[in-house]
Amino acid sequence: MTQSFTLGFSCPDQPGIVHSVSTFIVEIGGNITESRQFEDRENQLFFMRVEFDVKSKTDLESIRETFTKIAEKYSMKWRLADSTQRERVLIMVSKYEHCLNDLLFRHRSGALAVDIPLIVSNHRDLEEMANWYGIPFVHISQSNGKDAAEEQLRKVIADNGIELIVLARYMQILSGQFCEDFAGKIINIHHSFLPSFKGAKPYHQAHTRGVKVIGATAHYVTRELDDGPIIEQEVARVDHSHTPEQIASVGRDAEAHALARAVQWHAEHRVFLSGQRTIVFR
Amino acid sequence: MTQSFTLGFSCPDQPGIVHSVSTFIVEIGGNITESRQFEDRENQLFFMRVEFDVKSKTDLESIRETFTKIAEKYSMKWRLADSTQRERVLIMVSKYEHCLNDLLFRHRSGALAVDIPLIVSNHRDLEEMANWYGIPFVHISQSNGKDAAEEQLRKVIADNGIELIVLARYMQILSGQFCEDFAGKIINIHHSFLPSFKGAKPYHQAHTRGVKVIGATAHYVTRELDDGPIIEQEVARVDHSHTPEQIASVGRDAEAHALARAVQWHAEHRVFLSGQRTIVFR
Amino acid sequence: MTQSFTLGFSCPDQPGIVHSVSTFIVEIGGNITESRQFEDRENQLFFMRVEFDVKSKTDLESIRETFTKIAEKYSMKWRLADSTQRERVLIMVSKYEHCLNDLLFRHRSGALAVDIPLIVSNHRDLEEMANWYGIPFVHISQSNGKDAAEEQLRKVIADNGIELIVLARYMQILSGQFCEDFAGKIINIHHSFLPSFKGAKPYHQAHTRGVKVIGATAHYVTRELDDGPIIEQEVARVDHSHTPEQIASVGRDAEAHALARAVQWHAEHRVFLSGQRTIVFR
Amino acid sequence: MTQSFTLGFSCPDQPGIVHSVSTFIVEIGGNITESRQFEDRENQLFFMRVEFDVKSKTDLESIRETFTKIAEKYSMKWRLADSTQRERVLIMVSKYEHCLNDLLFRHRSGALAVDIPLIVSNHRDLEEMANWYGIPFVHISQSNGKDAAEEQLRKVIADNGIELIVLARYMQILSGQFCEDFAGKIINIHHSFLPSFKGAKPYHQAHTRGVKVIGATAHYVTRELDDGPIIEQEVARVDHSHTPEQIASVGRDAEAHALARAVQWHAEHRVFLSGQRTIVFR
Repeated sequence: MTQSFTLGFSCPDQPGIVHSVSTFIVEIGGNITESRQFEDRENQLFFMRVEFDVKSKTDLESIRETFTKIAEKYSMKWRLADSTQRERVLIMVSKYEHCLNDLLFRHRSGALAVDIPLIVSNHRDLEEMANWYGIPFVHISQSNGKDAAEEQLRKVIADNGIELIVLARYMQILSGQFCEDFAGKIINIHHSFLPSFKGAKPYHQAHTRGVKVIGATAHYVTRELDDGPIIEQEVARVDHSHTPEQIASVGRDAEAHALARAVQWHAEHRVFLSGQRTIVFR
Repeated sequence: MTQSFTLGFSCPDQPGIVHSVSTFIVEIGGNITESRQFEDRENQLFFMRVEFDVKSKTDLESIRETFTKIAEKYSMKWRLADSTQRERVLIMVSKYEHCLNDLLFRHRSGALAVDIPLIVSNHRDLEEMANWYGIPFVHISQSNGKDAAEEQLRKVIADNGIELIVLARYMQILSGQFCEDFAGKIINIHHSFLPSFKGAKPYHQAHTRGVKVIGATAHYVTRELDDGPIIEQEVARVDHSHTPEQIASVGRDAEAHALARAVQWHAEHRVFLSGQRTIVFR
Repeated sequence: MTQSFTLGFSCPDQPGIVHSVSTFIVEIGGNITESRQFEDRENQLFFMRVEFDVKSKTDLESIRETFTKIAEKYSMKWRLADSTQRERVLIMVSKYEHCLNDLLFRHRSGALAVDIPLIVSNHRDLEEMANWYGIPFVHISQSNGKDAAEEQLRKVIADNGIELIVLARYMQILSGQFCEDFAGKIINIHHSFLPSFKGAKPYHQAHTRGVKVIGATAHYVTRELDDGPIIEQEVARVDHSHTPEQIASVGRDAEAHALARAVQWHAEHRVFLSGQRTIVFR
Repeated sequence: MTQSFTLGFSCPDQPGIVHSVSTFIVEIGGNITESRQFEDRENQLFFMRVEFDVKSKTDLESIRETFTKIAEKYSMKWRLADSTQRERVLIMVSKYEHCLNDLLFRHRSGALAVDIPLIVSNHRDLEEMANWYGIPFVHISQSNGKDAAEEQLRKVIADNGIELIVLARYMQILSGQFCEDFAGKIINIHHSFLPSFKGAKPYHQAHTRGVKVIGATAHYVTRELDDGPIIEQEVARVDHSHTPEQIASVGRDAEAHALARAVQWHAEHRVFLSGQRTIVFR
């Protein structure tokens, strides 16, 4: 019986890190199947993601314990996971359905290997779609204020063991405190090629400015709106003949694709944070 | 003997324009070979570009005279040109050579059908390249101030019958008066995906922001720096492993391509101005 | 009240065509809103597509009658349609659901402006999806042979006034006679970048050959399998790390997009046949 | 003083390889700066490329000797090189100049870090371009037959310590024996999206077939013409309005880019052969 694990970490750069990690893997009887490293010379940081197989029956907790010594020695931020265990993802939506449909269709077809225990929305419009895909839908109203809504949201997150929150065109702004508490765990899709056209109606802005290429940006959410670390961007050509509505239509495809890739890479532990930037081991 | 002409115009939209134009072409014995139209409903403007062949020997001036009546009737801004007559292009450079080399190589290989009577620079670095391609090189120093330099530039433009000025990474800012006097006749290449990263060092800004796609923008020059109507944009993917220098290197290819296309389209009279936007009949 | 019409035609090239067409439009009180022409010099053919508005209440049949004289004079193959009337599209599927889902989602969201009276399949797998999108699903079994199945299919097409048949990964080969009877009215999506990798398992072929870019091809169906006129192609990058299954997954997105664009362009009467090639006025 | 080395190898897959390599690097005082691995499960092969710095003055020969034991243990095909030492590249051309100009311009601007000791051609057309870029040009005539020409070519290769031969639109076919003797050391640019349109006049074939996307393919040369392992492919959109000549013009840009990337990746030891396929650690 073979088990597969994924280890990811970042730490201050220094010699011997890869050797220590590969020694650890050999000692637990592992065989590396995929590995990526990046040395951020500017910030003197080292990033590594390694997948390895172990033939014998192995206890995740015990190998985590073994690894802790290495992690402490090198002051790592790290995560060691069973590769077959799926990330638990909460999708939040409002009224736009293209990103939700795209994520749920990929999930249904097996292309997106995550668990989606539920969908949360501040409206009821997409409940029918959630039902058809067989995912529980929870309506959290904003009518009692943002604080009450976020309290309810936090409860849902805790109750369902949510590890990642995906804002699939969720049109409410989360509080700064919420963003900080779930830093690196909320992915948003912004409907423009950030940093262009922040704020409202980016496709109208793009039309007014007469750009020839538009885009969409999947990024981690931070206190600063539309300013979080970028995970993925997708672009598409437009021209003078596109109305703002047609630009938006072209843009919706770009949004869905950028978001789907960002969610998949995050779920496969391929995305690492480095200040305002991301390292993505695609 | 067949002659080929290109007619381009914009005017307030109203019925009968295409009919009047096609009647005119039939009456001078012409045959339409390519035609494009665009109705800007927002601004109630109509744009048209039409190429037509005339079999008999025809005098450009006389058909211009004939067309003037139609042009006046519909309040057109228009241009009627012999299709085989090449646009006279002045290229301005400073020290970066990638855009100049790209334009001159396309010109030499026949892919860019324009005349380049001379190259102007505020430095002498690229004189050798100009020489090799056999294009006269004129050094206009900034040492006596911008006014003196622009006066000299204006003289060079007039003496050489220049119709289009291409700023191929020319690192001096032209005066507002100059920009206005040559409105719609100066194309600049900006080394970013406008409107992102205006101003200095855009590739460093892109690196700092951690974007996953960079771009370059060819646009007409206006008084407002980096804010003129966009003609063409080119994009390229980058990732976390790119240094600012590598981003710049990837970007240089994007700059050269966006600029070459913009110059070609302009020279083929395919670009029309509509406020801050362009109509490009590619 | 304004009505909008779309006229498309091809004919042997000769002077005066555009003038005749524009005269016709003026005479019925029309105003051209979009127009494209192409002169195929190689084959001496002329192609034109023109959209025009007519302010008064106009009878489609009477303007068709008026146009017939022009059409006959120039030996046109032509079509004149009410722009608001939607193409009636039959979608045929087998077991793969990605193209069907993509088409139905675009249809539902309004991005694909066609009527889909029903879906036909040789299997029952996608019936549930059809139901959810609210489109009638007809199962036509192959168990009584291809002839019986095609007879049933022809009846369904006639009964529903079908104008276009879309093979959205339909895994049966249609008879040569059927292909000829519906020439130019069947669009297929082939899961490779034709003419590479014709035939079975193209993604495995692509993997074996080690290509770095894969694609999908939407084309009209002819007697010769995978050899019909190409309408649209979409490409995507892959690398050595992609398994055949992952290549197929990347390819499915390319298939869905190429097919959706081909269907939309056909439905907007933007696609013209010229021998083995297509003219697409995008 | 820091030295930088690049190690690349392939070998049958088995546990412990990465550990052995990283132990070796630690023991010679090295620090890994970039590393990539790939496990080809289908063929049970393991590929690795690792760059590492060594702070002390180190003798390349002595570390090669040390590594030999590991290489033998795992039956590796390997190469260990000083990262700063440039690949010695021979460019072969005939009459087309676009690929040569692109390579030489990138070389001149520093973007392509290789040594180009000379250019060989069977014609004299591009001698002037070689001269301007300051690269010696050797004309090897085919007038005494292929054998005599290849003998002369072999001498030039030996005399100049050539490590890589780049066929930048070289229009002669090399002998099967030559291809075998320099297997994995000759890169060709084919002017189509292989495996489509093998053989002569691919752009005319593409036009006749009416494809909507064209491409270019950089590949290693083998006995079988146009059938060697693909390193890189580049694509570009065309449409019905492109003549074969315009398709060729669009294609020339694609050729130049695909070839430049292939040469750069090979020179950085990023390309590994695996049967008919390549592993490219971009």
